[in-house]
Amino acid sequence: MLVLHDNTESGNAYKVRLLLSQLGLDFKTIQYNVVEGETRSTAFLSAINDNGRIPVVEFEDGRCLAESNAILYYFARDTAFFPDDKWQQAEVMKWLFFEQYSHEPFVAVAKYILTMLPDDSPRRAEIPLLHTKGYDALAVMENRLKDHNFLVGDGYSIADIALFAYSHNAEMGDFDLSRFPAILRWIERIKATPGYIVMYPEGWTRE
Amino acid sequence: MLVLHDNTESGNAYKVRLLLSQLGLDFKTIQYNVVEGETRSTAFLSAINDNGRIPVVEFEDGRCLAESNAILYYFARDTAFFPDDKWQQAEVMKWLFFEQYSHEPFVAVAKYILTMLPDDSPRRAEIPLLHTKGYDALAVMENRLKDHNFLVGDGYSIADIALFAYSHNAEMGDFDLSRFPAILRWIERIKATPGYIVMYPEGWTRE
Repeated sequence: MLVLHDNTESGNAYKVRLLLSQLGLDFKTIQYNVVEGETRSTAFLSAINDNGRIPVVEFEDGRCLAESNAILYYFARDTAFFPDDKWQQAEVMKWLFFEQYSHEPFVAVAKYILTMLPDDSPRRAEIPLLHTKGYDALAVMENRLKDHNFLVGDGYSIADIALFAYSHNAEMGDFDLSRFPAILRWIERIKATPGYIVMYPEGWTRE
Repeated sequence: MLVLHDNTESGNAYKVRLLLSQLGLDFKTIQYNVVEGETRSTAFLSAINDNGRIPVVEFEDGRCLAESNAILYYFARDTAFFPDDKWQQAEVMKWLFFEQYSHEPFVAVAKYILTMLPDDSPRRAEIPLLHTKGYDALAVMENRLKDHNFLVGDGYSIADIALFAYSHNAEMGDFDLSRFPAILRWIERIKATPGYIVMYPEGWTRE
């Protein structure tokens, strides 16, 4: 069976769980405590991902694929989650790279600092800059979504899944989503897609 | 004619120039001074890229495509620069996302600080951390290249182009590439590919 090297609190891993669930694919997960460095062990680096990060998908033959958005591409290709049209494919890619470069390093990192690190962490000093840049990214999304239902074309795609992961709970990083009414409507639209699963399973608590 | 919204000193823009040249496609370029904020003007944000970055490719019908690696995908798709095999396609994507998340923010930013900002810039304080993380990324590349000619499969692809852009001149960011003999051999291999062009044209000087 497909194995997802996973962490419940990682939005990058959640992207993969969400797509696999919506595709109806079976998989099991192995959890890693990222804060305690479990993805930097010699065993993980040599066998799973030499870049020391989750998520990684491990196939039955032992091959491993890292990078959340590459995993989305692999499974979405030739399905309704990735458009056939060449231009729309390029636009999906534009949003996937936007997500990793202009959104995740700010929106996700603010959530990480505020929810995973101690209240007196010196990294709290990063929050104002993370908010400035994170709000810039959310404004780019709002600009698209104010007159479109989804990020690319007329349909739900892996572009939406990738951006949803850290946008729908941006308030955990102290972002005020009420400034972005189109994003809020888009979040509700995604929650209504078939096979949708929440990021934090019911009853889940941090160790 | 195709227009590349460009900056000579941007490795992200150079990726696009290199691929378009190797594909034999004609294009003209418009230069922007990024340091002086020319990609943040109202005209640029409203007409070219609301995320305020170059490179952007503008097609004859006015459509614009941002994100260097999405542009690489668009032009390489259905050519020898992007493999047919589904698994190899996923591996290309893995390297493209690795480049934007784990390599460029460190290797490129060190070069930017050391070559574009004044000697007394407070941002010089970032250099030690940028070196630590940049060396980590270069080590991941070395691990692949020590027994392979290219990053994916047996052939030169947009994965190589994307990683080449900021690796081949990492010494401008004070990285010591002599630690990475396989990367140095790979750089020479890429310089020998048909249609290769240098990043800084002969005689080019900073304004």
